[in-house]
Amino acid sequence: MAIVLPLQGKYMRMKIALAQINITIGDFEGTARKIKQYVQQARNGGARLVIFPELSITGYPPRDFLEFEDFVQQAGAVLEQLKPLSRDIGILVGLPTPNPQPEGKDLHNTAVLLYQGKELHRQHKTLLPTYDIFDEYRYFEPAASWNTVEFEGLRLAVTICEDLWNLGNENPLYTINPMAKLMSRKPDIIINLSASPFDYRHAHERIRVLRANVQAYDLPIVYVNYAGAQTDLIFDGGSLVIDKEGNIRKELPFFEEKLDFFDTDEFSLPGQDNERPKEKISLIHDALITGIRDYFGKIGFRTAILGLSGGLDSAVTAALAARALGPGNITALLMPSEFSSESSVSDAKALVRNLGINAETLPITPVFDPTMDVLRPYLGPGFDVTEENIQPRIRMIYLMAFSNRFGHVLLNTSNKSELAVGYGTLYGDLAGGLSVLGDVYKTQVYELARYINRNEEIIPQNILDKPPSAELRPGQKDTDTLPPYDVLDPILHLYIEERKSPSDIIEQGYDAALVRRILRMVNRNEFKRYQLAPVLRVSPKAFGMGRRMPIVAKYLE
Amino acid sequence: MAIVLPLQGKYMRMKIALAQINITIGDFEGTARKIKQYVQQARNGGARLVIFPELSITGYPPRDFLEFEDFVQQAGAVLEQLKPLSRDIGILVGLPTPNPQPEGKDLHNTAVLLYQGKELHRQHKTLLPTYDIFDEYRYFEPAASWNTVEFEGLRLAVTICEDLWNLGNENPLYTINPMAKLMSRKPDIIINLSASPFDYRHAHERIRVLRANVQAYDLPIVYVNYAGAQTDLIFDGGSLVIDKEGNIRKELPFFEEKLDFFDTDEFSLPGQDNERPKEKISLIHDALITGIRDYFGKIGFRTAILGLSGGLDSAVTAALAARALGPGNITALLMPSEFSSESSVSDAKALVRNLGINAETLPITPVFDPTMDVLRPYLGPGFDVTEENIQPRIRMIYLMAFSNRFGHVLLNTSNKSELAVGYGTLYGDLAGGLSVLGDVYKTQVYELARYINRNEEIIPQNILDKPPSAELRPGQKDTDTLPPYDVLDPILHLYIEERKSPSDIIEQGYDAALVRRILRMVNRNEFKRYQLAPVLRVSPKAFGMGRRMPIVAKYLE
Repeated sequence: MAIVLPLQGKYMRMKIALAQINITIGDFEGTARKIKQYVQQARNGGARLVIFPELSITGYPPRDFLEFEDFVQQAGAVLEQLKPLSRDIGILVGLPTPNPQPEGKDLHNTAVLLYQGKELHRQHKTLLPTYDIFDEYRYFEPAASWNTVEFEGLRLAVTICEDLWNLGNENPLYTINPMAKLMSRKPDIIINLSASPFDYRHAHERIRVLRANVQAYDLPIVYVNYAGAQTDLIFDGGSLVIDKEGNIRKELPFFEEKLDFFDTDEFSLPGQDNERPKEKISLIHDALITGIRDYFGKIGFRTAILGLSGGLDSAVTAALAARALGPGNITALLMPSEFSSESSVSDAKALVRNLGINAETLPITPVFDPTMDVLRPYLGPGFDVTEENIQPRIRMIYLMAFSNRFGHVLLNTSNKSELAVGYGTLYGDLAGGLSVLGDVYKTQVYELARYINRNEEIIPQNILDKPPSAELRPGQKDTDTLPPYDVLDPILHLYIEERKSPSDIIEQGYDAALVRRILRMVNRNEFKRYQLAPVLRVSPKAFGMGRRMPIVAKYLE
Repeated sequence: MAIVLPLQGKYMRMKIALAQINITIGDFEGTARKIKQYVQQARNGGARLVIFPELSITGYPPRDFLEFEDFVQQAGAVLEQLKPLSRDIGILVGLPTPNPQPEGKDLHNTAVLLYQGKELHRQHKTLLPTYDIFDEYRYFEPAASWNTVEFEGLRLAVTICEDLWNLGNENPLYTINPMAKLMSRKPDIIINLSASPFDYRHAHERIRVLRANVQAYDLPIVYVNYAGAQTDLIFDGGSLVIDKEGNIRKELPFFEEKLDFFDTDEFSLPGQDNERPKEKISLIHDALITGIRDYFGKIGFRTAILGLSGGLDSAVTAALAARALGPGNITALLMPSEFSSESSVSDAKALVRNLGINAETLPITPVFDPTMDVLRPYLGPGFDVTEENIQPRIRMIYLMAFSNRFGHVLLNTSNKSELAVGYGTLYGDLAGGLSVLGDVYKTQVYELARYINRNEEIIPQNILDKPPSAELRPGQKDTDTLPPYDVLDPILHLYIEERKSPSDIIEQGYDAALVRRILRMVNRNEFKRYQLAPVLRVSPKAFGMGRRMPIVAKYLE
């Protein structure tokens, strides 16, 4: 292939720094410090322009903090602080800015280019994602004008995240296209400030969409994303430079804060595609570890506690937490009941040894029995879900006592399959400050376990081999109430991720009565999920802010 | 004042039926049945036109059910069923309809007028509320064309809820105004299909906004709202007919399903204002009762359980629940500990007698002691928040055991003041399927109690008189940790409802250190509120879907 010189000579020598930062929402002091530090680093590396992600001064998503005038003013004050630093380097940052018009929403989502101590350019975001976990039209008025900016001989088309995402879809979400508007100004390069949360499809999808833009506009793109987690949302980094031919000239690491450089004169060299490998289960694994690490780090907690049942979900949660926080910072409680099998305790103990985490064993019978003594006169004889639920609730009391006394955060270990059908005890095993596996179906938890074990047996093989059980009554198995997970999970996926109707799902070959029963379970258990901790999001449709269902309703019931 | 004949003679005799219905979201069968029944009733009463609320076929808000094609198709199927009924009467209903354009959101929020067996007119909603509890731009593309419809000699301007709300504000939320567009067609009357949830300001606000429209366009308005609750949102009814002079010719009852008639020839009679009285605390009282009644009724539960501490919040919750569900359907558990005062138990028992509800007394010491026996070796000596929290968690186990065995729904009794500052135990007293008082500040709970007692002492006076206490350690008082509620509540109101900054609040005369401490408590306790049951919304800013704050953040901390 011939060497192509896609860009004019005039900007061959422009070095750009991509600042893929990880910040805490609303931490204006810490963020200002970090941005200044990275500006310095960019300058030291010879960059003429340093690019930060979308809303880089507030963090993303700031949610209803945006309704506080004070919050927006504090962001503006940080912008002022940055101006003097831009004397000899362009600084491209994002922040909410007041909409000067009386009509419309009070704010814009804005990218500002600082240079030579003042504001050289501002461009508001046009396409405001308002779906799934996004609520941008709640706060922002879209841009009504579009302009490029001349910077050091290069004409930049500055766009913000979704502004480039209305392309390459058969069913575009928006009626206008800001990049098309900017094209009339004949830009040389597209810059995109992004805040694009991870899901297991996203890294591929992002490249597909950016390439569609490269192709449509015949321009290279520099794309800068966040790294790190904001509660449930995990930003995967992976900032990109793509040339006019669609080659990935640079792809920053995943889940890792990083400043890196790209020199535009490299565009005149032959294009090589430097795309990083993207293996789904490895990305999910790293995303969950990032989610745990930043949840703790950003709220200022170091240590976690969880219940180890001897089952798969708590084993995988413990393994991920040990990697995220260090094994010495994890305490596991083994809390057997009279229904716990011998192997549950021995498997859990083997896991504790393999991971090197702390563990204590606290039986629940000494509390279960007196609880039943108090309740029996009212409940009468019998053993049903009432007595089953009391057991995980006693475990919650133990776990929360450790949490309260020692400042550990309780990790929830429920998986997406059981959360979907309501197979869990409210205020029992559904408790916890953060749900680690709540967006991971049971069949994917098995995959994660095998991935964790890929080099050595960390999770004892017996935990993977034995049939799943809640062990709340003698001889209980998950399959007493639920179909096997390799049947359940695809049905759940079709309903939750794909939003298929019962008849669509049945058409794919699943038993009609089973499909109806499962969808009814999903809908009837919204009330439990409503009270669940934030769920680390790794799929395109996670429980939580991104899936908003009525609790009181009769659809498909 | 002279008699004014605001409308031309041609439609003097048009009788309109306002159908202020109460339906369950997604209950297509039940809703179709109810709409048909009301159409029949309207026809029997001689109406030429019957008007239902916004999205009357699905219920409001359908939330992410709207992402299911099947859901939208089922709504369309109900519309088809209604056509034959429109042979001799106009039926104006609301439903989601597919957007035929590939660009933009997939749906419109549409009002359809059926007549003579077919669709005579459809108008999409233009202004899509996307703030507080509203998410309409998540689903809907706004209208891009506007037209009136000739119906029986009358030219109707059909609008949907928010379409009339961009008027009378100094800071309009939208850049366009659909009613101004419709005016070019010279309509005779404005019709508004609404789904406007209650808050204690709303009934006044609604009249103010509608009058601003009357004044701006010199047209009468017929406005139809829902009655009844959808989980946390309570629709107060209060459907209106307002004449050109701004007189309220008809105002339907609050919180009550009702079909009523208005004959347009009454517009030629002298205007009398028939506004119903609107007393804030009485509206809140009725709203909460509606919220409890419909939550239970629509999920098919009849009975409630709650813990009675002898304090004010549980007393008021019990009184409201007894009114909503009938005293025989309420079971209260008295669960004293060694820290409970004598008067707590005797006050609670007096309340039980006054209300005629069921009650049982179950001490928690027989479980607390063995729990501490298990935990003490790990926790070591001492008594802090750890031991305090164990007590409400044991109570939760009792309450949930009754709930599981007997099918009672657990009512949460926390008030807005304590939820705001995190004064409550997660998985303890914060448990429950529905939060009754979670949007009522403590000072308002006192007002509610006095209102409930206005004719006779239902809530024992001693419960109102004694200082509030959680009774989790010897001699504990709320004021050990919190300022008095008449100081706390106004600060919380300024921050939560008014979104004021610390400096704004301090300027109003509150102690600076106190203000900072309280706001920090509010922000640090998002994680607890995230796991709270739905909160019946009675204020302009309730915890839940309408207030979306980051959990991991550093703003004002």
